[in-house]
Amino acid sequence: MAKAGVGEFDLIARIRKRVGPDDSVLLGIGDDAAVLAPTPGLALVATTDSLVVDRHFTTDWDCADIGHLALAVNLSDLAAMGARPRWVLLSLTLPDADQQWLDGFLDGFLALAASHETVLVGGNISSGPLNIGVQLLGEVAPKKFARRRGAQVGDVVAVTGTLGDAAAALSLGSNASPELRQRLYRPLARVEAGRVLAKRVSAMIDISDGLVADLTHLLSTDLGARVELEHLPASNALEAAVPEPHQRWQLQLTGGNDYELLVTLDEQHLEAARASVRPLGLDLARIGRIDATGSLNCRLPDGTQLEMDNGGWDHFKD
Amino acid sequence: MAKAGVGEFDLIARIRKRVGPDDSVLLGIGDDAAVLAPTPGLALVATTDSLVVDRHFTTDWDCADIGHLALAVNLSDLAAMGARPRWVLLSLTLPDADQQWLDGFLDGFLALAASHETVLVGGNISSGPLNIGVQLLGEVAPKKFARRRGAQVGDVVAVTGTLGDAAAALSLGSNASPELRQRLYRPLARVEAGRVLAKRVSAMIDISDGLVADLTHLLSTDLGARVELEHLPASNALEAAVPEPHQRWQLQLTGGNDYELLVTLDEQHLEAARASVRPLGLDLARIGRIDATGSLNCRLPDGTQLEMDNGGWDHFKD
Repeated sequence: MAKAGVGEFDLIARIRKRVGPDDSVLLGIGDDAAVLAPTPGLALVATTDSLVVDRHFTTDWDCADIGHLALAVNLSDLAAMGARPRWVLLSLTLPDADQQWLDGFLDGFLALAASHETVLVGGNISSGPLNIGVQLLGEVAPKKFARRRGAQVGDVVAVTGTLGDAAAALSLGSNASPELRQRLYRPLARVEAGRVLAKRVSAMIDISDGLVADLTHLLSTDLGARVELEHLPASNALEAAVPEPHQRWQLQLTGGNDYELLVTLDEQHLEAARASVRPLGLDLARIGRIDATGSLNCRLPDGTQLEMDNGGWDHFKD
Repeated sequence: MAKAGVGEFDLIARIRKRVGPDDSVLLGIGDDAAVLAPTPGLALVATTDSLVVDRHFTTDWDCADIGHLALAVNLSDLAAMGARPRWVLLSLTLPDADQQWLDGFLDGFLALAASHETVLVGGNISSGPLNIGVQLLGEVAPKKFARRRGAQVGDVVAVTGTLGDAAAALSLGSNASPELRQRLYRPLARVEAGRVLAKRVSAMIDISDGLVADLTHLLSTDLGARVELEHLPASNALEAAVPEPHQRWQLQLTGGNDYELLVTLDEQHLEAARASVRPLGLDLARIGRIDATGSLNCRLPDGTQLEMDNGGWDHFKD
């Protein structure tokens, strides 16, 4: 199963060589577990997300892009809590001990980790069908984290950045512009935005499965929302690539992989929240309002309602 | 890909229903990440290990045994640090949304978690080739954890419990006795033993890949060890099943999946260490000594040295 002479421990040594020491890491890669020094007074935030081939990426992807994405999806989950990422573990199941693939994967993974001051502290490597598991640990003040539940009737619904670029890149394939492709292959988790927004929002989630699916997670049997389609923020690249509004809205509503933050908040906090993310080069677009209908309704500019048959992305429902 | 009507979120709801609240969990299953309250003054210990089908188990395994094993291998890693397990995350990649399989898996997983007062706090589910990732978080006093490096020339090498049962069960298949099969399918992580031993040992590791492979991890270019084969602790079940000593030693030296703890310690602490694990129903058998040879030597009862060609278990070397 392996290339001659290259084994699990060679690969681990290869990873270890690329990770420097860090004051918060009492014991890092190479032991049975990592030992970490949490910041006194902060709560620990833990998430894990896996990438599966042909599901989250395909084998023709650049391995550095896969490394970037594997960490980005986890950073995005921590962003949605308003947490600061600190430490990461990596579980690789690889079909063979391909050092070149691993090196490329690490290029993408470690560069993104470094840009968020996040240290790789451990993990494991097995052989089998390709599966990339990432476990990310972060910290947050115990009463300052955001959650999915918390929206109130009357709250504004808002979203960072722009929606639909990744879905357009996926749909257009090699015809997609570099700007759109960048959003699909090198998504940016809104970690800093999450931290500044957490104290102002009533609920927050990252948009990984599509706006409709993820907004639905903020609702309940009593809590609905109305989204104004004309207010969905689109990039210039998306408007150029998909000029027809209905087609664009479809991508923005149901396409996943945007990794923007979706929030609800009291209208009186909206301007302060917008101002807080502006230094990050981001806008916070108001796209709708929470209501008591118990369902999600999307309104076209002419006031009629969009008929929807697809709640977004469920990993077992194609 | 899915059974009609059953999706990722149905499975998550199914898991969530079986997990109760816990004071240390500020936010559990169902949000973007879990938020946990670490114990002030303790270090955080993090490990992750994956099970791959046909590698760590086969499809004919009982799903509750797979659930048990997935957690046990991670508990064993924390045991080797002397840490107390607290919180666990579960990353499942499943070929289909099989509720019955999941329920059985959870039976084994959650029963073992409960017996170690460990709470399932999050995870993720994807569809793809079966892959079971577990991330375990624990706590330890910052200066009280054990590590792999630390053995000194002259230290005694010792091991908890008995070795070779799981390897014998694997080798004998359906001919293995229930006692041997229990060790393979329901291994017990030596969590309590790890905690009491941590303060007395110079180095500790769990034996997952086989005694030779794991003892080698405690050595270095300057540090070797001699193991006396006649002192390898064997269960009555193993002695009955494999009466021929050479055959038995082979299983004990290179068979993985024992999940006993291998320690080195100053000889003067040996009796106290043995006494400390006795209340747990365990012995700590002295099996050899650390020396300055830089290599691992196994001595037969007649004083000659065993020739070895296999360093144990590497996931990429079959």
